[in-house]
Amino acid sequence: MSEIRQLVERMGRDGRAAAARLAVATSEEKNRALEAVAVALENNRGKIQAENEKDLAAGRQRGLSGAMLDRLALTDARIDSMIAGVREVVGLADPVGGTFDERVRPNGLNICRMRVPIGVIGIIYESRPNVTVDAGALTLKSGNAVILRGGSEAINSNLALARTMSEAVASSGLPAATVQLVPTTDREAVGEMLVAEKYIDLIIPRGGKTLIRRVVENSTIPVIKHYDGICHVYVDAEADLAMAADIAFNAKVQRPGVCNAMETLLIDSAVAEEFLPSMGGRLSDAGVEIRGCHRTVELLESAKPATEDDWSTEFLELILSVKIVDGLDEAVRHIEQYGSHHTDAIITRNTETAKQFIGRVDSSSVMVNTSTRFSDGAQYGLGAEIGISTDKLHARGPMGLEELTTYKWVVTGQGQVRE
Amino acid sequence: MSEIRQLVERMGRDGRAAAARLAVATSEEKNRALEAVAVALENNRGKIQAENEKDLAAGRQRGLSGAMLDRLALTDARIDSMIAGVREVVGLADPVGGTFDERVRPNGLNICRMRVPIGVIGIIYESRPNVTVDAGALTLKSGNAVILRGGSEAINSNLALARTMSEAVASSGLPAATVQLVPTTDREAVGEMLVAEKYIDLIIPRGGKTLIRRVVENSTIPVIKHYDGICHVYVDAEADLAMAADIAFNAKVQRPGVCNAMETLLIDSAVAEEFLPSMGGRLSDAGVEIRGCHRTVELLESAKPATEDDWSTEFLELILSVKIVDGLDEAVRHIEQYGSHHTDAIITRNTETAKQFIGRVDSSSVMVNTSTRFSDGAQYGLGAEIGISTDKLHARGPMGLEELTTYKWVVTGQGQVRE
Repeated sequence: MSEIRQLVERMGRDGRAAAARLAVATSEEKNRALEAVAVALENNRGKIQAENEKDLAAGRQRGLSGAMLDRLALTDARIDSMIAGVREVVGLADPVGGTFDERVRPNGLNICRMRVPIGVIGIIYESRPNVTVDAGALTLKSGNAVILRGGSEAINSNLALARTMSEAVASSGLPAATVQLVPTTDREAVGEMLVAEKYIDLIIPRGGKTLIRRVVENSTIPVIKHYDGICHVYVDAEADLAMAADIAFNAKVQRPGVCNAMETLLIDSAVAEEFLPSMGGRLSDAGVEIRGCHRTVELLESAKPATEDDWSTEFLELILSVKIVDGLDEAVRHIEQYGSHHTDAIITRNTETAKQFIGRVDSSSVMVNTSTRFSDGAQYGLGAEIGISTDKLHARGPMGLEELTTYKWVVTGQGQVRE
Repeated sequence: MSEIRQLVERMGRDGRAAAARLAVATSEEKNRALEAVAVALENNRGKIQAENEKDLAAGRQRGLSGAMLDRLALTDARIDSMIAGVREVVGLADPVGGTFDERVRPNGLNICRMRVPIGVIGIIYESRPNVTVDAGALTLKSGNAVILRGGSEAINSNLALARTMSEAVASSGLPAATVQLVPTTDREAVGEMLVAEKYIDLIIPRGGKTLIRRVVENSTIPVIKHYDGICHVYVDAEADLAMAADIAFNAKVQRPGVCNAMETLLIDSAVAEEFLPSMGGRLSDAGVEIRGCHRTVELLESAKPATEDDWSTEFLELILSVKIVDGLDEAVRHIEQYGSHHTDAIITRNTETAKQFIGRVDSSSVMVNTSTRFSDGAQYGLGAEIGISTDKLHARGPMGLEELTTYKWVVTGQGQVRE
């Protein structure tokens, strides 16, 4: 057996044992552990920043861009924000232990479902080191053990953060293996995690499409993911056009680099002439490049013709594709063909049209008369978000603490046997 | 592109289009389609049996065992039972369209989750041809399109059944592609189904471990499955021993060939001397072979020594492994090490011990003072069962209609934009 496989199996076994303890931990025990983590992050600030400095130096030497170095840097403000994040999780309701769907069967059996942690969750990410702490806090609060695998450029930072968390959790009386980080940047470790189904119950990949595709293709463990967010706003013939303009502007411009920003604006042909010129002007003034269908280009001089690829591209910047459609059917078909099942909105005053849109658009979030930018765990009132799922199974859309749990059936009898 | 891939893609596209229609079908439309299926099965009885006869003849020629030929045969009684099954599904409540978790956010956004079909479900099975009809009825009622792939030995029967269903559904006004069956026995078709993630949302394999392992290893689509049912009954020191004996007897003997039958009996050492000899006698009288730990063998002359493999074997026949354990901790550890997360029961009068067992045993069903044989969709009141899941994600334990649905977030605003 390779050393890496041995390492991952050992971590898996330790995680499994930790999960067994966490499954019966009280909310008080979990909150005490989280508070210990918050204090430890504060106390180890200097050590963490020294390790982060190693990653930054290596990054500079490898020629990482300024933006990437910025994302990597654990400034005082970022550490403050991580600590505040952990304390916010303390304040969230514990989803574990509640029962639902209770029924008494004719033979007297009492049957219910009980909400329980999933077990051991593997998180594979490329992004900023704060994911280490955010994900660790959410998995702990939901009673799960976590095995983290971060990006190689942040390895020293991530190890320092994970060690700080793990020691703090242990000092509070819960298992050190509640939070583990794979201590090597060897890519073989990811492959071993993805087949460690004896030890890991769920894989959540967070990062670019290439990473996620690799995870999906190689994992024998269930994966919850989203590839991208190609979000649409459809301006219906019966839309309040002033509202539509404000929403479309917000959905594209307020923060274009995130997955719930609008990438394509669909406009009903009945209102295109009235709506598009002023909307286009407002977007252009904000620096938005418009790529339109041929009817859009006719109505809007500033628009370039869109290519076929543009309709299925997550621009993540100030670029917008615009298409004029002949009614709801064409809008729904366009979203089905090019969308990514993330978040799509309709602007309309007609409640029947809205109902049709809600029923027919097969996306994790469907919105009426508001901005796709609200597609977010905190905005939905979930308190915090471990990620967004565009899958159909288990969790769809923003995933909070409850989505990090599953259920078991609990059946209580008085000696019943089956006839 | 291979012909098989083209075939699967075409079926996938047709299934996707059917699913779009089914997602907005009313309960009345779906029930009308199911009633049409019931009538068509009756009207096509002769044709179906003629096709079944071809499979039986081919099976005889290939030397299939009598038991296998019996499983394959579509007798009048079996067709009656399929028809009755379809009509039962008509009577079940439609899970689609309900909303839950509704909340109004401080900014006035109304947010809820709406229960919706999953979409296109692929079912890969080896077993009896009645699965074709049972699975088709349940997926239709829950608003899903289904792509069925049955065993090669039943291909003519399955094609006749699927064609009958598909034509009946079409005659009722819903899409013919609501129910599709892969019309080839080429194994490549399974491989193509497992990567058709653009068209298929969920794969449910039903069959032996080899089939399920192949599906898990090759699927890029989420899979819900169970490998086996190694169910335990733990007789606690504070058990009502008469009740324990009746339950253990029922769990092993009433129907040993099914996944919720007991495979291992765990007995607390404090009551082993009192309990085991009479229990062992009763089981032996019923023809049960006992394979015990060394302490069991000491107390029970009729018991053979169990091998290490016996603890993790799903016997599915009148064989039982028996272990004497020193208390709850050892029982839980044994179940964790050798169990399959299917169904495990404790027999005890001590409610605190029962609570500990419920919390610590990580199985899809955990039972107190009743027989594992109740782990079943109909017994739980789900009305019907598409399968049992020992996975943690989405559905655990018996899966009924609701487990064939997912949700979407529905967000309704009055023009809100994000600050």
